[in-house]
Amino acid sequence: MPTLCCPAVAVPEYTISLKETLALARILHASHEQLPLVLRLIGNTKVDRRHLVQPIEETLRHPGLETRNLIYVREAKARIPAVVQKALANARLVADQIDAIIFVSCTGFTMPSLIAWMINELGFRSDTRQLPISQLGCAAGGTAINRAHDFCLAYPGANVLIVACEFCSLCYQPTDLGVGNLLSNGLFGDAVAAAVVRGVGGAGIHLVSNGTRLVPGTEDWISYAVKSTGFHFCLDKRVPGTMEQLAPELRSVSGQCGWDAGELDFYIIHAGGPRILDDLSHFLGVVPEMFAYSRATLTEYGNIASCVVLDAARRMFEAGAVHEGARGIIAGFGPGITAEVTLGKWTNLVSTPVAKTRIYPEEVMA
Amino acid sequence: MPTLCCPAVAVPEYTISLKETLALARILHASHEQLPLVLRLIGNTKVDRRHLVQPIEETLRHPGLETRNLIYVREAKARIPAVVQKALANARLVADQIDAIIFVSCTGFTMPSLIAWMINELGFRSDTRQLPISQLGCAAGGTAINRAHDFCLAYPGANVLIVACEFCSLCYQPTDLGVGNLLSNGLFGDAVAAAVVRGVGGAGIHLVSNGTRLVPGTEDWISYAVKSTGFHFCLDKRVPGTMEQLAPELRSVSGQCGWDAGELDFYIIHAGGPRILDDLSHFLGVVPEMFAYSRATLTEYGNIASCVVLDAARRMFEAGAVHEGARGIIAGFGPGITAEVTLGKWTNLVSTPVAKTRIYPEEVMA
Repeated sequence: MPTLCCPAVAVPEYTISLKETLALARILHASHEQLPLVLRLIGNTKVDRRHLVQPIEETLRHPGLETRNLIYVREAKARIPAVVQKALANARLVADQIDAIIFVSCTGFTMPSLIAWMINELGFRSDTRQLPISQLGCAAGGTAINRAHDFCLAYPGANVLIVACEFCSLCYQPTDLGVGNLLSNGLFGDAVAAAVVRGVGGAGIHLVSNGTRLVPGTEDWISYAVKSTGFHFCLDKRVPGTMEQLAPELRSVSGQCGWDAGELDFYIIHAGGPRILDDLSHFLGVVPEMFAYSRATLTEYGNIASCVVLDAARRMFEAGAVHEGARGIIAGFGPGITAEVTLGKWTNLVSTPVAKTRIYPEEVMA
Repeated sequence: MPTLCCPAVAVPEYTISLKETLALARILHASHEQLPLVLRLIGNTKVDRRHLVQPIEETLRHPGLETRNLIYVREAKARIPAVVQKALANARLVADQIDAIIFVSCTGFTMPSLIAWMINELGFRSDTRQLPISQLGCAAGGTAINRAHDFCLAYPGANVLIVACEFCSLCYQPTDLGVGNLLSNGLFGDAVAAAVVRGVGGAGIHLVSNGTRLVPGTEDWISYAVKSTGFHFCLDKRVPGTMEQLAPELRSVSGQCGWDAGELDFYIIHAGGPRILDDLSHFLGVVPEMFAYSRATLTEYGNIASCVVLDAARRMFEAGAVHEGARGIIAGFGPGITAEVTLGKWTNLVSTPVAKTRIYPEEVMA
């Protein structure tokens, strides 16, 4: 059964604290009519600190789309290799054992995608399947896990590398002054995450089933306006309230396995904002503590878009508190509004790899 | 076995002939040092006519990225529904029998992708899997077929809708004056294509196997520069020569099934330009006539990016000259440089659908 191995995550070295964010908002938007509301909303995010690929002074400057996108590429190429190496090591695989790479990123754009560069520079085989996804936003971390799962169902024994690269700070638009924009400016952070789904062997989350759900009639609620200055994030104020509609969908996907979404052993939920976590625990009838890993991601890193579910999963792996056979759910939420839902069972066992999967040197020595 | 059913293709109502293209190049680039070379290259494309979503006068104006992208969305929404309906009818399915939509387009950008809009407006189920791909360029038609194939391997009986929407004319950049740019201005055309891969039943190309190949060290040869004016297409002059490297890769993928890529019954090849077709027939040792469907696409529509392989396949379906059990190859080429290769066998038989696949009304009446 395909297994999601421990993700690797890196956040950049520059940071901004909640206090600094609030102080900055007071200066930049001193005359904004709704400043008190904005400050309250940012304060409510409970995002203690966010990480940025550039110092805040640089982040606040908009050097034009062309330069920004070059920064995106430069920072991606600088930061992806170590995260990929860590994810491979976590899965006890090397680059040429990977059969497909799913690259998700909505905060910069390249053609070809960075998968071509990874194949050329990081030792992946030239016959690696390439699946770049740039249009599913925050949901794409979940999408990547689910499509990796599907790929392993199609080709038992295949291994899929997931890479999520989100530099949300490079989508900062100084001229966007709506409440949703100013809130987003205080909410999103930068990160790179990677994880391997092993078709055979590996410890972690056995992928059991997956499903996608679109909330009808909400395609404009989370969207990009594409302008000469780049992607402009548009966030409808109704978004935080969508968990009432999505909780039954999580129940529906869980029902595919006969599982009750309110009675699972672990929850890896997209930490889009605090209300998403609060509402979902309410509507699923789950105590808020069950979302502790997602909440930690939000508090320590902010909303890191498609990296959130991978980072929250990493925290759960590293906490080491999940018991063999524990059943859980991973849910990514993003534009559409789309929910990408994964059902999995925890396993500590490293099954014997089949012949196709070469053994990682460490395993030989163990 | 998953079957690619007859694609549907629509080209827009505005057209430009080769003669008009050459006349325009003479006027617009009268003082260009390499005009004679450009005219010769465009003449060599043998593209008789291309179709455009706007009259040529509008096409030549650059109204800014924001307006252009809004035109992309407007034209996509106007033109996709009829093509999708036709593709569904060709597969004898209705919208709610589709389990996944793969949407490929590299000539405009939206988030969410247009899949969300299709689900909301065209009757697809809200649990349809969404796979938008914007970073694989011309190769993405092949990618879509291959990922649809994989999805049906993972979920036998599932049906996947592929939609390719390419309005290359909306990437026209009047300030790009390199020879590769001016050639591209005379080569690319607009189109919308769609096709269904049926997991069970259906007549057409039984999908047998697939593979992807990257030509090492060529990631800069076909690429976009992302600027405030949008995507700027960069085409290295070495690109037309890559078939020497890709022909052995097509042989390698064919070898997976024990097939000889030089001895197949049909060929659906990305018609990126005339030399790609000429060289590939040479290096595979196949007579040029075997690429007639691709050549017809190039002549009548130009290079329509990810739509090419779907349009060439449509021509083969409509010609009705393929015999039961015929073995063939579909090859999409694009940035990376990436080849997406599909192996398939022609079938005229419509197998009895399994229970999961509801019967299309026409079948009941037949």
